Amino acid sequence: MAKSKFEYVKMFELADAMLPRCWPVVRVDGRSFHRFADVHKFHKPNDDRSLNLMSCAASHVMRGFKDVVLAYGQSDEYSFVFHKDCNLYNRRESKILSTVLSLFTSRFVFHWPEFFPTIPLQYPPSFDARIVLYPSRRILRDYLSWRQADCHINNLYNTVFWALVQQGGMTPAEAQLRLKGTLAGDKNEILFSQFGINYNNLPQLYRKGSVLIRRECSPVVDGGGDLSNENLAVSDVQGLNVDIIGEDFWKEHPQILGDDDNN
Amino acid sequence: MAKSKFEYVKMFELADAMLPRCWPVVRVDGRSFHRFADVHKFHKPNDDRSLNLMSCAASHVMRGFKDVVLAYGQSDEYSFVFHKDCNLYNRRESKILSTVLSLFTSRFVFHWPEFFPTIPLQYPPSFDARIVLYPSRRILRDYLSWRQADCHINNLYNTVFWALVQQGGMTPAEAQLRLKGTLAGDKNEILFSQFGINYNNLPQLYRKGSVLIRRECSPVVDGGGDLSNENLAVSDVQGLNVDIIGEDFWKEHPQILGDDDNN
Amino acid sequence: MAKSKFEYVKMFELADAMLPRCWPVVRVDGRSFHRFADVHKFHKPNDDRSLNLMSCAASHVMRGFKDVVLAYGQSDEYSFVFHKDCNLYNRRESKILSTVLSLFTSRFVFHWPEFFPTIPLQYPPSFDARIVLYPSRRILRDYLSWRQADCHINNLYNTVFWALVQQGGMTPAEAQLRLKGTLAGDKNEILFSQFGINYNNLPQLYRKGSVLIRRECSPVVDGGGDLSNENLAVSDVQGLNVDIIGEDFWKEHPQILGDDDNN
Amino acid sequence: MAKSKFEYVKMFELADAMLPRCWPVVRVDGRSFHRFADVHKFHKPNDDRSLNLMSCAASHVMRGFKDVVLAYGQSDEYSFVFHKDCNLYNRRESKILSTVLSLFTSRFVFHWPEFFPTIPLQYPPSFDARIVLYPSRRILRDYLSWRQADCHINNLYNTVFWALVQQGGMTPAEAQLRLKGTLAGDKNEILFSQFGINYNNLPQLYRKGSVLIRRECSPVVDGGGDLSNENLAVSDVQGLNVDIIGEDFWKEHPQILGDDDNN
Repeated sequence: MAKSKFEYVKMFELADAMLPRCWPVVRVDGRSFHRFADVHKFHKPNDDRSLNLMSCAASHVMRGFKDVVLAYGQSDEYSFVFHKDCNLYNRRESKILSTVLSLFTSRFVFHWPEFFPTIPLQYPPSFDARIVLYPSRRILRDYLSWRQADCHINNLYNTVFWALVQQGGMTPAEAQLRLKGTLAGDKNEILFSQFGINYNNLPQLYRKGSVLIRRECSPVVDGGGDLSNENLAVSDVQGLNVDIIGEDFWKEHPQILGDDDNN
Repeated sequence: MAKSKFEYVKMFELADAMLPRCWPVVRVDGRSFHRFADVHKFHKPNDDRSLNLMSCAASHVMRGFKDVVLAYGQSDEYSFVFHKDCNLYNRRESKILSTVLSLFTSRFVFHWPEFFPTIPLQYPPSFDARIVLYPSRRILRDYLSWRQADCHINNLYNTVFWALVQQGGMTPAEAQLRLKGTLAGDKNEILFSQFGINYNNLPQLYRKGSVLIRRECSPVVDGGGDLSNENLAVSDVQGLNVDIIGEDFWKEHPQILGDDDNN
Repeated sequence: MAKSKFEYVKMFELADAMLPRCWPVVRVDGRSFHRFADVHKFHKPNDDRSLNLMSCAASHVMRGFKDVVLAYGQSDEYSFVFHKDCNLYNRRESKILSTVLSLFTSRFVFHWPEFFPTIPLQYPPSFDARIVLYPSRRILRDYLSWRQADCHINNLYNTVFWALVQQGGMTPAEAQLRLKGTLAGDKNEILFSQFGINYNNLPQLYRKGSVLIRRECSPVVDGGGDLSNENLAVSDVQGLNVDIIGEDFWKEHPQILGDDDNN
Repeated sequence: MAKSKFEYVKMFELADAMLPRCWPVVRVDGRSFHRFADVHKFHKPNDDRSLNLMSCAASHVMRGFKDVVLAYGQSDEYSFVFHKDCNLYNRRESKILSTVLSLFTSRFVFHWPEFFPTIPLQYPPSFDARIVLYPSRRILRDYLSWRQADCHINNLYNTVFWALVQQGGMTPAEAQLRLKGTLAGDKNEILFSQFGINYNNLPQLYRKGSVLIRRECSPVVDGGGDLSNENLAVSDVQGLNVDIIGEDFWKEHPQILGDDDNN
């Protein structure tokens, strides 16, 4: 039983270092979360407990990986932005991808009872993950804008859909038909005229998603609503529910992307 | 807030399909498990509860991914062998890697209380993972032999080490010094002459690790010890603690690698 | 002008080692060869001079790269098969791809006057190249069969097409229309009944393409026609125009793929 | 002889698209050019004919690939910078690498007699090539600075070395020993005091290498010496022997890298 005889198989593990000076983003996505949400009776259209549990797990990832400069989450997904100069694990793609994903997953399951004290976990959820490189701050910001725009679009749809079903007495199929082809303005109008809901007054948690950044030493005042930080287990991570598409957020937090103009 | 304006960032997600007709193996490895084992008072040199929990989590991966034809685990690692013709997720590497890893992780945390009923989880462990392609059955078998030889080598060392410490009254440093430069025969001799332990009589779970395969319809008699199957939650997966370096196992289970001689 | 200040850019050159124990094949393809053939008045449907020049260039590649065990060429393409255990340039993909391609290209231009003594090169042709890994001898052989089947299919079509045009007085458009939807049998029948051509009596150079292998010490008798070896500049390379789809060729030359049954 | 039976082997050709919005650079390097230079009696330390032939071949690459915005050559190497937004061949790495390399090689051989009318080509040279991505203009410029600094360093060394040998009567080994450990200033001093050579008065072709850019409509006045453009076959490509490390060149030619500040 010679060890050396078999060790040659290690050479099949090929190098997978990522291109330097690009911003690596790991996005974690829930698998089959529709079913998972049904089984665990998630509130519709948004379940604060689940959203906060996601942010709790994400904050632990940020604690574990100091190179993560920002995380953004909405629905059943979370994106982790590593600094472009990050040299964690020599930028080995599968190592970074896998450790982030595994830590996120284990924290989600571990902290479940804190967020769903009355609903035992029937089975553990799982997530997939991908890692994508963005070569500039501008493109990285466009990535984050893409996710936040997606949050808004889905939330607006879901908000009207569930109002039609829960308050309007429609079946899901009827609500779907009613919304087919409607634009954002139409949906806002339905919400306001039919249900007295002003979409813009809904919690920013639902409309903007959750932004996790490193807490700075000096106190920071954000225009947007603070994510209730008691749900974040990690003291040096700060949760915000604010717009990150516009310039304001980035001007207030210039340290996140750094001031090096070298992409 | 135009969605389309930002969607171009999707094009940064590059294709990562794996070479066809090679055997993909996902290996999951515990991160900082020395500390995790200490905190949770794992028995030394082997903790049946942890080994069985690992196999339980792995069996759920096999249930979730029908393309896994065999899994092999030892210590804090588990390898999942996908069939070479597997087309799961169009062989996208990060998709396969991440879903296997996440499911394994979540199951490990979820089932912890069943295997450690008296030891609450202090914090959730995490794992890393890699995916490696092996181009032939011979090389794939050498990979598995490498892991099982590694199991044996580590287990022999750990068994003597902890005998010297727990029964021989040595400090860890003294035990380490005592074993420096010893060969397998020396270690066997120490175990036998000093502690009356015949290494070959120790449980196959420790010496061989755990092999998970699909249960076949007709009953199978294995020479080796059966992994207590009540620890496997999944009925169509069978756990064995047998040698997989020699030919016998593969002759008994020809369906695992298939009889196509096209690599 | 500090050198070190800029040298960091070397780290953007990422590793690109190919998976071990797979058969690397570099295929070189002429770019815009239709136009090149027209400008240089190639004979239709086949131009021996061009085919032999291709084989001459390829034989120089085989002389330069001892790890090439076989090359196969037809029309304006040539495939170079490296042995699966080849460790040339540590299996760096772009290094192998580029050196083979550049040598092939430079030899093609350099030897042009020997094969086209009366036709000056108007402009130099160029080629593209790709490198593909095949994990087993069976699949590698299927690759070569694919190229040789392609040679046959194209040659049969071109032979009939140009007979219709050159001897049948059709315009190219008419010939194309005549052949639309015809099967191999139909084309053979046209050739025979209309032009008295028995396709199977055409030179194997056209129907089978060119196979280059290492010359063995003992003399070899091949059933198929010998590629006129005066056209090969390299003495230890042997050119054949034989079938490589069936078993005979491989039984006669077992040394090419080796007898190791480890894929 | 069914075509379809073998066509499955095409699926082994994996996608190799390059990350968008990064600057692809193809660098072509002479293989064994020391020997090639000796055989063809290149002038030492620099041979104008060879340098101009390199630039001639490079200018044909620029004519063939409109996405190349700049090329830089020195000694036996040439770098081709593609615009970051280039979508040539859908950014397939091996396709771009191979077509550039093959065209460069074929042009080098084809134009040889024009630059070396009295020295027949004994055998054709070959080149290797690599493709590297740079994520920002700053890093791309640092890449070019790296190559130009390398040109200077090598040229200074070679100039002194060959002065010591050709005019100073030293053997190559003695010259090498003499230069061991010397700094740039030492070398300049040797050149000036011993041979009356002011290094800064040597042709910019030797000290700066060759820069190829697209000719602009309005006339351009460059501080540096113009590469004799009769050596460039392509009218819309302009050759310059100027500094590209400092800011001046880039301020004079802002169109090369573009004014989009999105990396």
